[in-house]
Amino acid sequence: MTLKNNIFNRLDLGTFLMEIPKGNRVVLAQAITLAESTRAEDVAMANQLIEQLLPLTGNSIRIGITGVPGVGKSTFIEAFGKYLTALDHKIAVLAVDPSSTKTKGSILGDKTRMEELARDEHAFIRPTATSNALGGVTDRTREAILLCEAAGFNIIIIETVGVGQSETSVRTLVDFFLLLLLAGAGDELQGIKKGIMEMADAVVITKADSENLKKANQAKADVQHALHIFSDSDSGWKPKVITSSALEKTGIRETWNIMEEYINFTQANNFFNENRTQQNLVWFHERMEQLFKQHIAQSKEIDARIKILEKAIIDKKILPSRAAQEIISNFFKI
Amino acid sequence: MTLKNNIFNRLDLGTFLMEIPKGNRVVLAQAITLAESTRAEDVAMANQLIEQLLPLTGNSIRIGITGVPGVGKSTFIEAFGKYLTALDHKIAVLAVDPSSTKTKGSILGDKTRMEELARDEHAFIRPTATSNALGGVTDRTREAILLCEAAGFNIIIIETVGVGQSETSVRTLVDFFLLLLLAGAGDELQGIKKGIMEMADAVVITKADSENLKKANQAKADVQHALHIFSDSDSGWKPKVITSSALEKTGIRETWNIMEEYINFTQANNFFNENRTQQNLVWFHERMEQLFKQHIAQSKEIDARIKILEKAIIDKKILPSRAAQEIISNFFKI
Repeated sequence: MTLKNNIFNRLDLGTFLMEIPKGNRVVLAQAITLAESTRAEDVAMANQLIEQLLPLTGNSIRIGITGVPGVGKSTFIEAFGKYLTALDHKIAVLAVDPSSTKTKGSILGDKTRMEELARDEHAFIRPTATSNALGGVTDRTREAILLCEAAGFNIIIIETVGVGQSETSVRTLVDFFLLLLLAGAGDELQGIKKGIMEMADAVVITKADSENLKKANQAKADVQHALHIFSDSDSGWKPKVITSSALEKTGIRETWNIMEEYINFTQANNFFNENRTQQNLVWFHERMEQLFKQHIAQSKEIDARIKILEKAIIDKKILPSRAAQEIISNFFKI
Repeated sequence: MTLKNNIFNRLDLGTFLMEIPKGNRVVLAQAITLAESTRAEDVAMANQLIEQLLPLTGNSIRIGITGVPGVGKSTFIEAFGKYLTALDHKIAVLAVDPSSTKTKGSILGDKTRMEELARDEHAFIRPTATSNALGGVTDRTREAILLCEAAGFNIIIIETVGVGQSETSVRTLVDFFLLLLLAGAGDELQGIKKGIMEMADAVVITKADSENLKKANQAKADVQHALHIFSDSDSGWKPKVITSSALEKTGIRETWNIMEEYINFTQANNFFNENRTQQNLVWFHERMEQLFKQHIAQSKEIDARIKILEKAIIDKKILPSRAAQEIISNFFKI
């Protein structure tokens, strides 16, 4: 394919608009790169592109999947993805990995992961850049989701590692949030950031095979007990807990059945659409704040003044609220 | 006292600076009112006042107490407060009630609550205003805490109703977070907002007396089980669960013992001080964002444009990120 040789050259808008709806994965990857760029002209072009593609978006199921390293996330997603492509679904996996910048790279570093799914014509696997802490881990993930949808992918999986702040953000851009947990008593839940379990629409206990099986069933009961005491979610959905073995290929179909049930349930009570609209409005307001914060972070002058004020705050020489007022008055004239 | 007759006149800075360190509760109340004002000159004066009082602040234990209406919050706080004043502590109770603006007023509306504590010379009870949703429920609570500390109150209780977003914010301004729960199986936890239990340093099961006692002990075991599966908190502290009866005055001393144990534990590992510094830096950055958002909300011109853009977003005519860029470019020239 000629486009492949051309990968480091800039494609024009027309090519993007023609190739993405055809499901051209090479062009799709470049469009996501464009959307992730911080150059003003790239952002403008990406916005224009995605806006023209908007009528083609929204027709997927957006799924967040999280779990600590070692839980068997890639193995699960690969088995799950293969199961779905066999049903003729088109799957995009976007990996959000906040640790990658610190060379921990639990998601992005491991190039051998999901090899089989990566070779699948109906699958598209792609890490999404996490520009910087200020931008938030989901900075450009929303755009990547829309681009994947425009390219015809109807199941989008957003993968995170479940140890940071990213999951709370990811919750605001998916329809369904799945938490993977390792079997075992007590210890295995260590490392899962507080609050994550409460966001889950379903919990899958992984590696539920051979000698692990008993522990997995115990973990399932424990988690069910824990979920029971949380209040109802906004959707009215009661979170489900199941066990799974990627080795023995159990729990994969069940996971998909739960998701289908969830989609039916939330479409029937209209939560599905209301939630999507709400997510778009949150995106709008969050992005305004983010552009404001980006400006602060990128301005050397403001940053220098902030550092001085932070020192004064630590030394109890200035009230934090007055320091904030000073920055706003001096640099934004408001 | 002459000041009392003068309560609706503006006190000058000198009077505030002289009377607050003496523990004058009437002047303290006016200072909090000043800090809650949205008038620019009041804010400036309040900032100046609090900044001059800063050396007198920080020497209290800041405690967040939350629980849904009906859990027996006022009864518990009254018994707890009386217990502490009897030990010669000086207690300030600041009630943050986001629902009060909707005339639900579960905290502020009930004037007869904590009558006994209100009459106690060593106690100060005060609702804090929640100006508007944008400002956040803890908008001025930080200033109120500092003013109470300057007035010599060494235990500050921030009371919330546990059903909204306010608790997550309150967590960022207290040293210790206490959750009150009603005895009973399952149902009693309904209504507690997700994530709140995970923030608790201790949980008190209330109304643990006569025929409720068995249920209370069962609830205690349930909650202990639930807390067990959460990961360790940043402080390294393991949350405690106890039962209490305000009627039979049980669990009150135990609650205070837990708090003292917590303070010793976190002072020993230095979490206490690091957390306070961190909270001040969060305050600084949050306030900057808040001033930015306030400007947007208060500008009729910007607000009108935002409403148009929101409509376009709902109609899928504009990308939320591009709408955000438009507001930022047009109104902030960045």
